[in-house]
Amino acid sequence: MQALLLDRELSYRTDQPIPKPEAGEALIEMRLAGICATDLELAHGYAGFTGILGHEFVGQVVEVADANDRHWLGSRVVGSINIGCRQCPTCLTTGPAHCPTRRVLGIRAKDGAFADFFTLPVANLLRLPDHVADETAVFAEPLAAALRVVEQLQDLPRGEIGVLGPGRLGLLIGRVLALAGHRVTMLGRSETSLTQPRRWGLQAGLAADFPESGFSCIVDASGTASGFTAALRLLRAQGCLVLKSTFVADHPIDLSPLVVKEIRLLGSRCGRFEPALDRLSAGDIAVETLIDGVFPLSAGPAAFATAARPGVRKILLKR
Amino acid sequence: MQALLLDRELSYRTDQPIPKPEAGEALIEMRLAGICATDLELAHGYAGFTGILGHEFVGQVVEVADANDRHWLGSRVVGSINIGCRQCPTCLTTGPAHCPTRRVLGIRAKDGAFADFFTLPVANLLRLPDHVADETAVFAEPLAAALRVVEQLQDLPRGEIGVLGPGRLGLLIGRVLALAGHRVTMLGRSETSLTQPRRWGLQAGLAADFPESGFSCIVDASGTASGFTAALRLLRAQGCLVLKSTFVADHPIDLSPLVVKEIRLLGSRCGRFEPALDRLSAGDIAVETLIDGVFPLSAGPAAFATAARPGVRKILLKR
Repeated sequence: MQALLLDRELSYRTDQPIPKPEAGEALIEMRLAGICATDLELAHGYAGFTGILGHEFVGQVVEVADANDRHWLGSRVVGSINIGCRQCPTCLTTGPAHCPTRRVLGIRAKDGAFADFFTLPVANLLRLPDHVADETAVFAEPLAAALRVVEQLQDLPRGEIGVLGPGRLGLLIGRVLALAGHRVTMLGRSETSLTQPRRWGLQAGLAADFPESGFSCIVDASGTASGFTAALRLLRAQGCLVLKSTFVADHPIDLSPLVVKEIRLLGSRCGRFEPALDRLSAGDIAVETLIDGVFPLSAGPAAFATAARPGVRKILLKR
Repeated sequence: MQALLLDRELSYRTDQPIPKPEAGEALIEMRLAGICATDLELAHGYAGFTGILGHEFVGQVVEVADANDRHWLGSRVVGSINIGCRQCPTCLTTGPAHCPTRRVLGIRAKDGAFADFFTLPVANLLRLPDHVADETAVFAEPLAAALRVVEQLQDLPRGEIGVLGPGRLGLLIGRVLALAGHRVTMLGRSETSLTQPRRWGLQAGLAADFPESGFSCIVDASGTASGFTAALRLLRAQGCLVLKSTFVADHPIDLSPLVVKEIRLLGSRCGRFEPALDRLSAGDIAVETLIDGVFPLSAGPAAFATAARPGVRKILLKR
C-alpha cells in the first residue's frame, strides 16, 4: 500500500504491507488526513519516532478483528490517538493519554494514518454524522486539543486572554475560548499573520506592541522558545500561562520570570473528541477556511514542505 | 559606615554614607544578616543590581523619619523586603511583592542590610519577641519564602512531595511541608547532601535513584537547570511542580515534558513574615543548626566565597 514513512527522513512508499488488525482493533481505510506541527517536528527527529506518520484523520472501517465489532464495518469515523494499556492506575484515573506504556497513532510506537490503511482500537473510534463533511471532521483532533485549554481554564474568571501564535492550533484555541465567553486577543509576529484571526472575528495584534505584564492569562501556541519568552513578558504577576508548545530551547532561556512573577503554568496536550465533534457537527467553527491545500499521498514530502512554510495553515492529504 | 557594595564586583567598604530615612522609613542598625542564594546570584550579575546587598536581617531601629513612628525606636526587628507603591492595582490586591515599580531591599533599587545601617519603611517591620534570638530570627525571610510553598499547596491532597535540592532553602521547605502534614522526601545529588535532612528527621535519597514519574508533586529548590530537568523526569502526568529556583538555562533545555505530561507549574517567591515569626517563636524548626559560620562584615567577600561552596548552608554576617 501507499504510505508516508519516516525513517531518518520522510519518504513516499508504495511497498508497505497492509496492517492486520489485532484483537479489539479495526482496519481503517484513510479518506482524508491532516498535517500538524507535531508531524513537522517528528519529521525533524523530535521524540525519535520511526514509522508511518499521521494522527489527524477521517476514515472508513473496512475490517475488524473481533466478530462483535462487526457493527463498525462501513462506518465513517474519526478516532482518538492515545492507546493505553487500560489496566494501570493512570489509565484507570487520568486516562490513556498519560499511560506510561501508551502507544500514540503516528507519534509513538504505532503506525499512523498517512497511508491507504491503518489500524486503531475500536474503543478509540467515533462515528461521524452524515452531515459532517470529511473536510470538517478532519479537524476533530486539533479541535479536541484546543478544547482541552477551555477545560483547563474552566475555573478562570472570564476575562482577557492572549493567544500567542495565530497558526493552525492557535486559531482554533482562540475561537473556542471566545465561544466559552473569554475576551480573546490573538498575538502574532507579523501583520500578515493577523489577517485570518480578524476574518474569524477575533481581536488581533502584534505581540511586540503590547506592554509588559498586560495579560492575566496567555495561551502559548507559538511553538517557539521566543514565543515562550514573549509570554513571560506579557503576563502579569500571578498570571496563568497555558503551554501548548512543545519545543527544545536550544538557545539560553531565562526561566526566572516564572518564579519572580509567580506564574501558574499549565501544560496542555490532548483533549476529548466528543465535545470537538459536537462543535463541528453544530457548524460553530469555520474550520474549512483553514485549509490551504489538499495533496495526494504520493506528493507527501511536498505537502510537508508546504505545511512548514510560514503563514500556511492546514494542509490535507488524500489517497 | 561599613558596607558590602556590589558594583561589578563585591567589595568591603568603609566609606559609605549612613542613609537618611525618608518619609515613613526607619533607620536600622544591623545586628545580624544572612547570605542566601539570591545574594550569590546577584554578585554574579543576575538582575543587574548595583548597591549594598543584603535582605535577610535582624536589626534595631535607631531613628525614624516621622514623629508618630517614634514608638519603634529601640525595637529589635525583622522586616519584609518588598517596597511597593501602595497605590497601584497590584499593591492593592496581590500586594507589594508584585508591584511593577517595587523596590526590594538589597535586590532592586534599594540598598540592603549588609552594612552598619540601612533604611526600610516601618510598614515592613515586625517587632521580635525577646525570647527569639538573633540567630533564630535571621531566618524569618527564608522561612517566609518556604511557607509560601505550603500556602500555594494548601489545596493539594496530603501525599508524597519530593523536594529537590537539600540546601538552605530546600531544608526549610521540607520541614514546613512535613509540619503541614505532607510526606516529604528530600532529593539530593550526593550522599553527603542527605546528612542534614536526615538529622532533621526527613526522608532523603539521591534523585537519580528514583524512577521516572514517581512523584505527584515536586518542589524544585535546586537552583539549577539540571535540577529542573530532574523534576520534569520525576513528576508523574498532571503532577505539580513548585518552582523556587531562579536560573538562566544556558544550555539547551527540553521543556516539552511540561506539555506532554501536562504539568502544573507554580512559580513561588516571597512569603508572609507573620507565620514565619510564629514558627520561629514556637521553636518548631531548628534553624540554628543550619548556621555554618558567622563572619564580620569586613570579611564579607570571604563569607560569600564560603557560602558558595557546595554543602555549606547558612553563612551569617555581623558588624
